[in-house]
Amino acid sequence: MKVFLAFACLLAGCLAQRPQPCKSPPLLTGGLSIVSQNEELFAVARYLYDAIGERIRLFEVVSLDNQTSFYDILLLYREHVMYQIDDKDRTCQKLPLKDDFMPLAIPGDATFVHQVVLGDSSRPAEGLLMNTWTGKLPDQGGTFLASVTDFGCIPISFEYQVKPYGWLQTTYFNNVIGITDPELLIPPSFCEDAEMPADAEPVDLLSLLKQKN
Amino acid sequence: MKVFLAFACLLAGCLAQRPQPCKSPPLLTGGLSIVSQNEELFAVARYLYDAIGERIRLFEVVSLDNQTSFYDILLLYREHVMYQIDDKDRTCQKLPLKDDFMPLAIPGDATFVHQVVLGDSSRPAEGLLMNTWTGKLPDQGGTFLASVTDFGCIPISFEYQVKPYGWLQTTYFNNVIGITDPELLIPPSFCEDAEMPADAEPVDLLSLLKQKN
Repeated sequence: MKVFLAFACLLAGCLAQRPQPCKSPPLLTGGLSIVSQNEELFAVARYLYDAIGERIRLFEVVSLDNQTSFYDILLLYREHVMYQIDDKDRTCQKLPLKDDFMPLAIPGDATFVHQVVLGDSSRPAEGLLMNTWTGKLPDQGGTFLASVTDFGCIPISFEYQVKPYGWLQTTYFNNVIGITDPELLIPPSFCEDAEMPADAEPVDLLSLLKQKN
Repeated sequence: MKVFLAFACLLAGCLAQRPQPCKSPPLLTGGLSIVSQNEELFAVARYLYDAIGERIRLFEVVSLDNQTSFYDILLLYREHVMYQIDDKDRTCQKLPLKDDFMPLAIPGDATFVHQVVLGDSSRPAEGLLMNTWTGKLPDQGGTFLASVTDFGCIPISFEYQVKPYGWLQTTYFNNVIGITDPELLIPPSFCEDAEMPADAEPVDLLSLLKQKN
């Protein structure tokens, strides 16, 4: 592994200034795709991300074990609540949310792997300077591999291992800084009456997928 | 799958002009990494690519089945010859090359999958417009998935299925247009005396790796 890292550093060239861990912008809107190594899980989503209010909205098409589902999910991490929203039928399911909010960031104790240009640096607007970092996930202790843009710390990809999927790779695209529609981060009016089931187990995104399929 | 494609197109936005299949620049220098789905093969290489002379040079660190090797390979497709070069010991192995030259290009019969921005489009130099295509490989008939920059058709990633590795993903980085050192595409002087073994089986890159490990 050390040989690879040395070689990757050689390929990236000698850098006068070493990249530093960074925080992504607190407000982002874009798309993401999730692919699992065992090919059982594939998802593509539109997302809104608000690290100030600790809120995420996902409009997500998920294929798990060859079954395709659509999810519209609002995650309110401060209240530890997840809403599953059906805009067409105006119905809403309220569930306790297990996870704490994890901002999009390279943690301070992450290890720098390499800096590369995607595309080319021969002409303007044809290349993207990307930094890759590795480290341990805070909760599960597994290894992650995260790539962000050098200018702006915009997420490009995030990989970590989850049983039974193997490596789970999230790729971010069509990102813009800011929230295109702030109302989408507020529960719709028909969610006001949604009751949290007394016996509901706290869920995270992955456990929700497993329940449905 | 159709749902995904429709959703991906939605995420990419409605495009006034549909991307067209394209050829990458004929002279490129850069780096590439290869990762197999089954995690048995990992390689990182510096490459020189000359589509005019149909020549490729690779300086490659390969990990296969937990054994790490270094390869310095010159592929001359017109002559159907592959040189394995050891610069330190000034030795050279000459082998018949099986494959025909495959230029870096999106073939005319490929199917457009989606166009996305990696990074963000909120500020200059933070985003990279990327087109993804799928199609069938000419020889083996397997499916490929290829992503190139919209401006310049610079390769970003190329995936296809190979037994026993599963999906083999090649990612290109640090690309520059042109050849940084043309001499590296000419066999070194100590290769002149290299004899092709009479009974040598024609090789391709993957079969070469399997022989060594």
